[in-house]
Amino acid sequence: MHIVPATLLSAAVTILSILFVFYTGINVAQMRGRHKISAPAVTGNPEFERAYRVQVNTIEQFVMFLPLLWLATAFFETPGWLPAVLGLVWIVGRIVYLRGYMAAADKRGIGFQITILATAALLVLSIIGVVQAWIAVHAA
Amino acid sequence: MHIVPATLLSAAVTILSILFVFYTGINVAQMRGRHKISAPAVTGNPEFERAYRVQVNTIEQFVMFLPLLWLATAFFETPGWLPAVLGLVWIVGRIVYLRGYMAAADKRGIGFQITILATAALLVLSIIGVVQAWIAVHAA
Amino acid sequence: MHIVPATLLSAAVTILSILFVFYTGINVAQMRGRHKISAPAVTGNPEFERAYRVQVNTIEQFVMFLPLLWLATAFFETPGWLPAVLGLVWIVGRIVYLRGYMAAADKRGIGFQITILATAALLVLSIIGVVQAWIAVHAA
Repeated sequence: MHIVPATLLSAAVTILSILFVFYTGINVAQMRGRHKISAPAVTGNPEFERAYRVQVNTIEQFVMFLPLLWLATAFFETPGWLPAVLGLVWIVGRIVYLRGYMAAADKRGIGFQITILATAALLVLSIIGVVQAWIAVHAA
Repeated sequence: MHIVPATLLSAAVTILSILFVFYTGINVAQMRGRHKISAPAVTGNPEFERAYRVQVNTIEQFVMFLPLLWLATAFFETPGWLPAVLGLVWIVGRIVYLRGYMAAADKRGIGFQITILATAALLVLSIIGVVQAWIAVHAA
Repeated sequence: MHIVPATLLSAAVTILSILFVFYTGINVAQMRGRHKISAPAVTGNPEFERAYRVQVNTIEQFVMFLPLLWLATAFFETPGWLPAVLGLVWIVGRIVYLRGYMAAADKRGIGFQITILATAALLVLSIIGVVQAWIAVHAA
């Protein structure tokens, strides 16, 4: 069996996560059409506003997630596939968040928590990886 | 003639795209001044609101564009300059979008479509590149 | 004494900057609770709106800052620690911005200017680095 390098796994997860971010925009466009909310307005119908919040919140989370995914991929060593798996958890959390939030604003909690957990885990791996690399420099 | 590496081309395009993102913020600040919209308000005048939407939408698009530009640059092999050229198309699409949207909300379509086309092409190159690298691992 | 590579310094600064971005979201959540602003609303109380603007503006700035930090880290050569130091200045500027803006909207100027200055300096280093690398290709 061949071991797929961690960078390839994280590249694939990055593509999947971008597809999800893209979908949150399609969702907003669909709600804009359904509820006749003409641009530049971003208010006027609760379902549209929830769709818009899903997109905005996803981008807020994405700009933290993606650098942490790649810091962890670059610096955390073993197991090398762990950052990519946490990236998949992040995407699942976002899907749960979107489905919950579109049903009702107070159902957005669980998906949000899964997302934050994955991000926090990637943060911990990044810190571990950077600290280990720092120590290795001084031990060299 | 010397061939400029793909990473240098994409680095130059990245700088240009960031300059455009920066300009969308300057445009908002100017409209804030012209129409006397004091922070933290982001509504109150249609031209200001269009400028603000241009900035927000550009950032939504930028966070997908930039990782795809670099995935394509890292993994798509021949021709190596293609990701950077698609990056230039993205920037042109954004300029057309800004000019159209500032004229009238319903003139934002063409520029938006050029942007999405460039992003979709970078997505395809990224997928091709990652799949090829994945196959190469298993063939090794 | 051991010299810590520029990539490690910038990785550490990236982690710190993400922690700050994360905090701007916590700040919004706290103001949402304090002023009873239920999602998906993002208006209704001036202090909440200022907190929300701090988060949005920080993300606008972050998506320009982070690629420039890493372009400068990758291409600007001497001194290698300069991009990371400018990254720290960016974070300090953001903290000053948050504290100023939360006190009053018209106190957001100084922190914003520190941020922009750090970003502009990273832009200049990135351009210098890319141009030098480009010249080196042609001189090879």
